[in-house]
Amino acid sequence: MFKKILIANRGEIALRIIRTCKEMGIKTVAVYSTADAESLPVRFADEAVCIGPPPSSESYLRIPNIIAAAEITNADAIHPGYGFLSENAKFSRICAENGIKFIGALPDQIEGMGDKATAKETMLAAGVPCVPGSAGLLKDGKHAIKMSREVGLPVMMKATAGGGGKGMRVVWKEEDIENALSAIQREAQAAFGNDGVYMEKFIEEPRHIEIQVAGDQFGTFCHMSERDCSIQRRHQKLVEETPSPFMTKALRKKMGEAAIKAAAAVNYEGVGTVEFLVDKHRNFYFMEMNTRIQVEHTITEEVINFDLVKEQIKIAAGIPISGINYEPQMHAIQCRINAEDPFNNFRPSPGKITVYHAPGGHGVRIDTHVYADYTIPPNYDSMISKLIVRAQTREEAIKKMYRALSEYIIDGVKTTIPFHIRLFEDEKFKKGDFTTKFLETFDLKP
Amino acid sequence: MFKKILIANRGEIALRIIRTCKEMGIKTVAVYSTADAESLPVRFADEAVCIGPPPSSESYLRIPNIIAAAEITNADAIHPGYGFLSENAKFSRICAENGIKFIGALPDQIEGMGDKATAKETMLAAGVPCVPGSAGLLKDGKHAIKMSREVGLPVMMKATAGGGGKGMRVVWKEEDIENALSAIQREAQAAFGNDGVYMEKFIEEPRHIEIQVAGDQFGTFCHMSERDCSIQRRHQKLVEETPSPFMTKALRKKMGEAAIKAAAAVNYEGVGTVEFLVDKHRNFYFMEMNTRIQVEHTITEEVINFDLVKEQIKIAAGIPISGINYEPQMHAIQCRINAEDPFNNFRPSPGKITVYHAPGGHGVRIDTHVYADYTIPPNYDSMISKLIVRAQTREEAIKKMYRALSEYIIDGVKTTIPFHIRLFEDEKFKKGDFTTKFLETFDLKP
Repeated sequence: MFKKILIANRGEIALRIIRTCKEMGIKTVAVYSTADAESLPVRFADEAVCIGPPPSSESYLRIPNIIAAAEITNADAIHPGYGFLSENAKFSRICAENGIKFIGALPDQIEGMGDKATAKETMLAAGVPCVPGSAGLLKDGKHAIKMSREVGLPVMMKATAGGGGKGMRVVWKEEDIENALSAIQREAQAAFGNDGVYMEKFIEEPRHIEIQVAGDQFGTFCHMSERDCSIQRRHQKLVEETPSPFMTKALRKKMGEAAIKAAAAVNYEGVGTVEFLVDKHRNFYFMEMNTRIQVEHTITEEVINFDLVKEQIKIAAGIPISGINYEPQMHAIQCRINAEDPFNNFRPSPGKITVYHAPGGHGVRIDTHVYADYTIPPNYDSMISKLIVRAQTREEAIKKMYRALSEYIIDGVKTTIPFHIRLFEDEKFKKGDFTTKFLETFDLKP
Repeated sequence: MFKKILIANRGEIALRIIRTCKEMGIKTVAVYSTADAESLPVRFADEAVCIGPPPSSESYLRIPNIIAAAEITNADAIHPGYGFLSENAKFSRICAENGIKFIGALPDQIEGMGDKATAKETMLAAGVPCVPGSAGLLKDGKHAIKMSREVGLPVMMKATAGGGGKGMRVVWKEEDIENALSAIQREAQAAFGNDGVYMEKFIEEPRHIEIQVAGDQFGTFCHMSERDCSIQRRHQKLVEETPSPFMTKALRKKMGEAAIKAAAAVNYEGVGTVEFLVDKHRNFYFMEMNTRIQVEHTITEEVINFDLVKEQIKIAAGIPISGINYEPQMHAIQCRINAEDPFNNFRPSPGKITVYHAPGGHGVRIDTHVYADYTIPPNYDSMISKLIVRAQTREEAIKKMYRALSEYIIDGVKTTIPFHIRLFEDEKFKKGDFTTKFLETFDLKP
């Protein structure tokens, strides 16, 4: 087992990793930017090394500084957390070249999943369902109709140069395809000077449902059930839960098997997440695989009583995983508490926390790096705390979260707590009736 | 279900009960003494009524004030927590007379278990093992020998007027009994002017192991496994864990059945705890039954994922319990954090908390009523927080507790945290090798 792990990250995930290391009897090194000198990971690690000023390109992303810190402190492994260098194949390779174990995926696994086109090819070859579509541009109306029969209606036609909702149209009937194609081509030519159009299956009422997987150095894989992350704002997850209120036992089995196929296709080592879109008919389509620990790994830990960071470290150390293939018995939900003003377009609100009081009691978990009198620097992600609850049922978990949110006091900065409180009062949310579009029409003031 | 519950208590247990009420959609009334005006239960309850000044006899124990507060606020039930009026048969009776449901045992159940002699008779009649002994005083040496054969060696002979360790002797061999009796009689006559001596079986290497039980209004009973509370200082529990490291499956079955017999013998309604002494041969003996929620109920909640306060409220409302008869899968430990100086004979250390930072993360639960800038009044129990961890195994739970203790920062007052840290470093404790005598010889400074 490793003797000393350097954590190449900051904030709550750095503290999260330190905690597991302490419980495993492994020494820790925190690295930090000058903006993070007062943070808890720096305080709780056995050693701490300053690696530069903000922004991240000068510190948390500066590979030579991090490798130097590992060498100075004699760390035999580096845990990259999430974000920053966690999915950087070059960093994974440099760690290996320097005799330091990177606690994450191998370079070719990161590269294989990092490039979308390559990943899709690999997935299709492995039998993992992907969103069907035209391999290239549509040639003409007849070609479009032929493609729509292959892909299945409804379809989405998109200008290849488009963006921001422009130059795209959903078509539900075959007789509308030719007209729609001409219209998009005209719009695209006018707007982008490029009339290329391609086609994809239109995913009706999409949900973001991901499967937690793990693979070890001996080719054993397992999955640890799903997380529903459909509550997103501009592709930023705000609430995650497991199990998904939309899940069935049969679908879980199918998605779990597909996720294991995905991981096996790249000989994946470590814990990872296979993200899918699920439509209203419970068809599911591969989106991407994250080759690292995720922010929302916590809810999986709560329902399976299992430390995923410990599992990462064990896999990296060459310890085999024991097959889990888990059927959830509990329900867990996480709210991401961000220092943002939900009443002002979620504008970041850095600054000094004057009062801090966290909720507690049965079934409540907090992962945070902040405390009273801590100053949130303006340089980084605005997430300041993860509030997690677990209970026997979804209904109980919702009530517990609502109770916990009502106890959570953070003064001095604006936070997303009022947003979450409003969300947990919403009848549609409480029924589990939501898609990734839910927040687009969600009214904060009912 | 009740519409509004008045909580006739203070501190962490008052907050604990408010939390469950919130999750059940029940309104709450906090009552408080003038010394507790700034406490969290007062802040988080829907209503709060001041019921007098300290000491408790002027407020938390003053029945008319509490009944008046319930009537003013239209509360239809009272939860007494632990301590104070929780095992007061008169209060339970007055509540009933005033049409307010007492969330606890009925008066005759409290009385039946409150008087030790009556309880012992009831238990013996129900077939629950009690510490064997002479019903009255020993007449002479021959009588003592006869009794020792019935009770079984070793025996403890005690002066009926004795106390503080004086006038008592353990005898291991039959030939020593007559001499020992004469000696104790002489000592007792000299020290107390009363030479009466009685005999009990001597419990070798006793452990305090208790069984959590529940009984409903329909005569259904269940037990929820054990808690080991052997780590005590002067009969004050400091650390509790479940399962007991001394437990076997067979013993759990026997003790669970005995605990259910005990509860059934008094037609018990509510959640309660049957406390046993267990000797080194795994014989167990009834000590007493607590007809209320206990401080350490939390660890049972952690391993069975079950809200015991909710169960209390449901039973009081006439909802049947579902049989549980639980076999533990997880391990949970609780440390009582007291505002006491462990290096100065555990002297209470009330005053203002200047810095407060609680541990968090996977498997860590905190139940506390304190916060930064809170002033601990000198009038009450010195417990300020309960730190609870759960993990797959005892070894992991111990490491997690040690990690959590090392993160817990409470400045401004002395606390028992350094004591707990030292305990969780102790090899004998880590092996589970302890009895109720453990702390008598425990050296804080190794």
